[in-house]
Amino acid sequence: MDLGIRGRWAILLGSSRGLGRACADSVAREGVNVVVNGRTAADVERAAAEIASMFGVETRAVVGDSTTTDVQDALLAACESPDIVLLNGEGPSPVRFGQLDSSQWDRAVQQGIVGPLSFVQRVLPGMIERRFGRIVAISSAMVKSPNSMMSLSHGTRLGLTGVLKGLSKDVAKHNVTINQLLPERFDTARQEQMAQVAMKMKGISYEQARAEQIASIKAGRLGQAHELGDTFAFVCSAQASYLSGQSIQLDGGSYEGVF
Amino acid sequence: MDLGIRGRWAILLGSSRGLGRACADSVAREGVNVVVNGRTAADVERAAAEIASMFGVETRAVVGDSTTTDVQDALLAACESPDIVLLNGEGPSPVRFGQLDSSQWDRAVQQGIVGPLSFVQRVLPGMIERRFGRIVAISSAMVKSPNSMMSLSHGTRLGLTGVLKGLSKDVAKHNVTINQLLPERFDTARQEQMAQVAMKMKGISYEQARAEQIASIKAGRLGQAHELGDTFAFVCSAQASYLSGQSIQLDGGSYEGVF
Amino acid sequence: MDLGIRGRWAILLGSSRGLGRACADSVAREGVNVVVNGRTAADVERAAAEIASMFGVETRAVVGDSTTTDVQDALLAACESPDIVLLNGEGPSPVRFGQLDSSQWDRAVQQGIVGPLSFVQRVLPGMIERRFGRIVAISSAMVKSPNSMMSLSHGTRLGLTGVLKGLSKDVAKHNVTINQLLPERFDTARQEQMAQVAMKMKGISYEQARAEQIASIKAGRLGQAHELGDTFAFVCSAQASYLSGQSIQLDGGSYEGVF
Amino acid sequence: MDLGIRGRWAILLGSSRGLGRACADSVAREGVNVVVNGRTAADVERAAAEIASMFGVETRAVVGDSTTTDVQDALLAACESPDIVLLNGEGPSPVRFGQLDSSQWDRAVQQGIVGPLSFVQRVLPGMIERRFGRIVAISSAMVKSPNSMMSLSHGTRLGLTGVLKGLSKDVAKHNVTINQLLPERFDTARQEQMAQVAMKMKGISYEQARAEQIASIKAGRLGQAHELGDTFAFVCSAQASYLSGQSIQLDGGSYEGVF
Repeated sequence: MDLGIRGRWAILLGSSRGLGRACADSVAREGVNVVVNGRTAADVERAAAEIASMFGVETRAVVGDSTTTDVQDALLAACESPDIVLLNGEGPSPVRFGQLDSSQWDRAVQQGIVGPLSFVQRVLPGMIERRFGRIVAISSAMVKSPNSMMSLSHGTRLGLTGVLKGLSKDVAKHNVTINQLLPERFDTARQEQMAQVAMKMKGISYEQARAEQIASIKAGRLGQAHELGDTFAFVCSAQASYLSGQSIQLDGGSYEGVF
Repeated sequence: MDLGIRGRWAILLGSSRGLGRACADSVAREGVNVVVNGRTAADVERAAAEIASMFGVETRAVVGDSTTTDVQDALLAACESPDIVLLNGEGPSPVRFGQLDSSQWDRAVQQGIVGPLSFVQRVLPGMIERRFGRIVAISSAMVKSPNSMMSLSHGTRLGLTGVLKGLSKDVAKHNVTINQLLPERFDTARQEQMAQVAMKMKGISYEQARAEQIASIKAGRLGQAHELGDTFAFVCSAQASYLSGQSIQLDGGSYEGVF
Repeated sequence: MDLGIRGRWAILLGSSRGLGRACADSVAREGVNVVVNGRTAADVERAAAEIASMFGVETRAVVGDSTTTDVQDALLAACESPDIVLLNGEGPSPVRFGQLDSSQWDRAVQQGIVGPLSFVQRVLPGMIERRFGRIVAISSAMVKSPNSMMSLSHGTRLGLTGVLKGLSKDVAKHNVTINQLLPERFDTARQEQMAQVAMKMKGISYEQARAEQIASIKAGRLGQAHELGDTFAFVCSAQASYLSGQSIQLDGGSYEGVF
Repeated sequence: MDLGIRGRWAILLGSSRGLGRACADSVAREGVNVVVNGRTAADVERAAAEIASMFGVETRAVVGDSTTTDVQDALLAACESPDIVLLNGEGPSPVRFGQLDSSQWDRAVQQGIVGPLSFVQRVLPGMIERRFGRIVAISSAMVKSPNSMMSLSHGTRLGLTGVLKGLSKDVAKHNVTINQLLPERFDTARQEQMAQVAMKMKGISYEQARAEQIASIKAGRLGQAHELGDTFAFVCSAQASYLSGQSIQLDGGSYEGVF
């Protein structure tokens, strides 16, 4: 399928590894030039080099926390007029409800709401003017089925969900779409880390921790990052212009709710 | 993007015109062989011929109402082991709530619930056994925002939504996914017909009726059938294996609700 | 709390036992006169007598299947101008998806959609004219989290949900509200019956079957019918005039979804 | 209806005026002793005096911003073991998306998420231990249908919604329920203020601004504060023990979505 986005430019926050990297690969395969971002210089530079080499597109590497003004400046210096923006970043660690404190919230809100939205504020006027924009956030399936241990995560991600949904209604008429992907249990470093947490908290083996992760998924397996990457690419396509304001779950069919 | 479905077979109910035809085109372009179905022989045969010629795939034509046992027999005679099934058909006409009667419900239930599900019953065991299946229903955005004039439509489509969702949980582990597309106001014969209805009911001109349709869509335009077709193709792809139980709105960003 | 409905009349379908009876008790306690209905004459008559004696209201007994025209005639003969209507009836039995057939659907649709809606058609004009109406359906929590064994139930209940929601938008301006209650696992004959089914299907004891029912509920217990009855009474109150189009879950906090 | 909460104690944040005051009145009428809170000493003291006089319950007045530690200390000094807690406070003002800044978010998050949750952290262990608790937040209908001008409001209220929902699953087994009320357009000072904003922004008269508010509500009128107050009282009742994790819209039937 020709996605109609060859030659476009994407700024992909948090794209040096895992799900974000898979998104970068998927759009680069379709001929999109990409700005790769992440916190670890070696990862970011390797990703940018690999993507350029594998897919023959232009790539640029911007290292640092994308929720800061400096890094946002650098991202926009690397690509002044992005057509596609991926909002992605590390999620907060699990915390028991009783132990949540104000400084944890401040950090989670900065990472999950304020930082991403300030970047959206900077790229949106240009997308509207050029009459093409695709903004996609990688959120979490938990926004639709919250679990108290992850309050920092869904507490901020739901806020972002609402703001992006409200905003999507305003910009649809300019051919700017805003959507979210809601992954659950992909085979990335995040699930490795969650398995380590489970091993400690429950006193179980690594194999048991991984088996429990899989048992929670109706598909009977973890997701593969490229599956999310290709969904991202489709949502960014020219022909996905009429699809906006959606939160698409990628969870192996696990969500219980009818909508 | 390579969807990984070249050589597979699809039975596409209600695919001789409009949105269904667009679905047929989009998967055929990816190398899927298709069984085209519809009620008007000339349309079905033309579609089958055009698709074979345009995309170089095998096509077969089965004429008739797909909710009947005879036509379901003919469809499965044309393709014993479909990998992909599209559930699609004409929606019921608008009726004021006070004028709904039992025979209208009987017909709508047969067309919208019983007929499609009996076909799913027939194809599902094979999909499970072969460990690949993609079932997609074209529903309506109205299932999430019902309007009393269309009670026959959302009254049956919501029923189907629920049954398919429940079922999707059972079959995810066999690599069989079940999803729905929820279109709103695509530029097809259906909207032409709705415009005619509005002209009569409101005493307005054709141009006004069309303008009102567009005014209800945040994107400021009607959808194009190929946009839905390509979304269908993506949902049927190999890499969409982890996406199931979803109802994806294609409505130009119009739905008010956050989820 | 004074619910402001003393002296009003209610027709309560399926109210001789279980949840429906609890609804009858709760509004009768507030001074509402009630028409009791059910299929077993002894139950209906006992309920009508007990309610009259306990709460000092007028009661009438109408025996028979409320989805038939004859019984609907008798109900409206017993009370020409109801202010409150409860839509309630026995749910369908569990059936495996592969074994569903057309005659099961026909019966479930008649019981779950066509019958209740034909009664709504008959009472709604009067409610609109008198500028007071409370229509409440007892649905099931399963409409929001469907399970394939209960396809007949949520397949029809979701249809009814959609039709009632669409209709609620039209009649809000006349002080007619339409809402649903979504119970899960109340301590009634229905759960006794489901326990018997589970004993046979799983080869477990009665105690195990009941323990499994309780284990599925976050509150750690089954619901008590009077809890639903009082919620019904509140939704029927004068001061609930601004609450319409809602589906309120009574499930011991069990639903996973955020909305 | 006897709500079974006579003699219990409630701490009601933001209860000196408007919707919060209506909640105080409604539970006090049922015999609940209340701690009234608000930012304006005269309002708080008047409310506490009036409630004591009208309903014959004990009342205490705590003046100040309930999201601060000092005021939370004072609230718990006034009532060490509350059975009922209302989370309520002023919502943020409308701001265009492009003009949102970090300090506005910080303030909105403190008011809408961090402050309320820190109070929940303090009262929850006692509720669990005593096996009775009713926590209710007054949120906004906008959490389900966001509008970009109110991003600060739904961006934080949705976060709170998610955290409370996750938490509700943990505490249901202790007879502690957590619910939300989602009002839209009640006849309070808030709508007066929104009318003033609309007059300036749109250059319309006060009468026009009020007519526009009413036109957006399917019931054809604004809500009355006591309607929300009585719903709050019911949700706090003994018999609402099985109702938890719900977000009940009080919007005159206006919400478009089926759920």
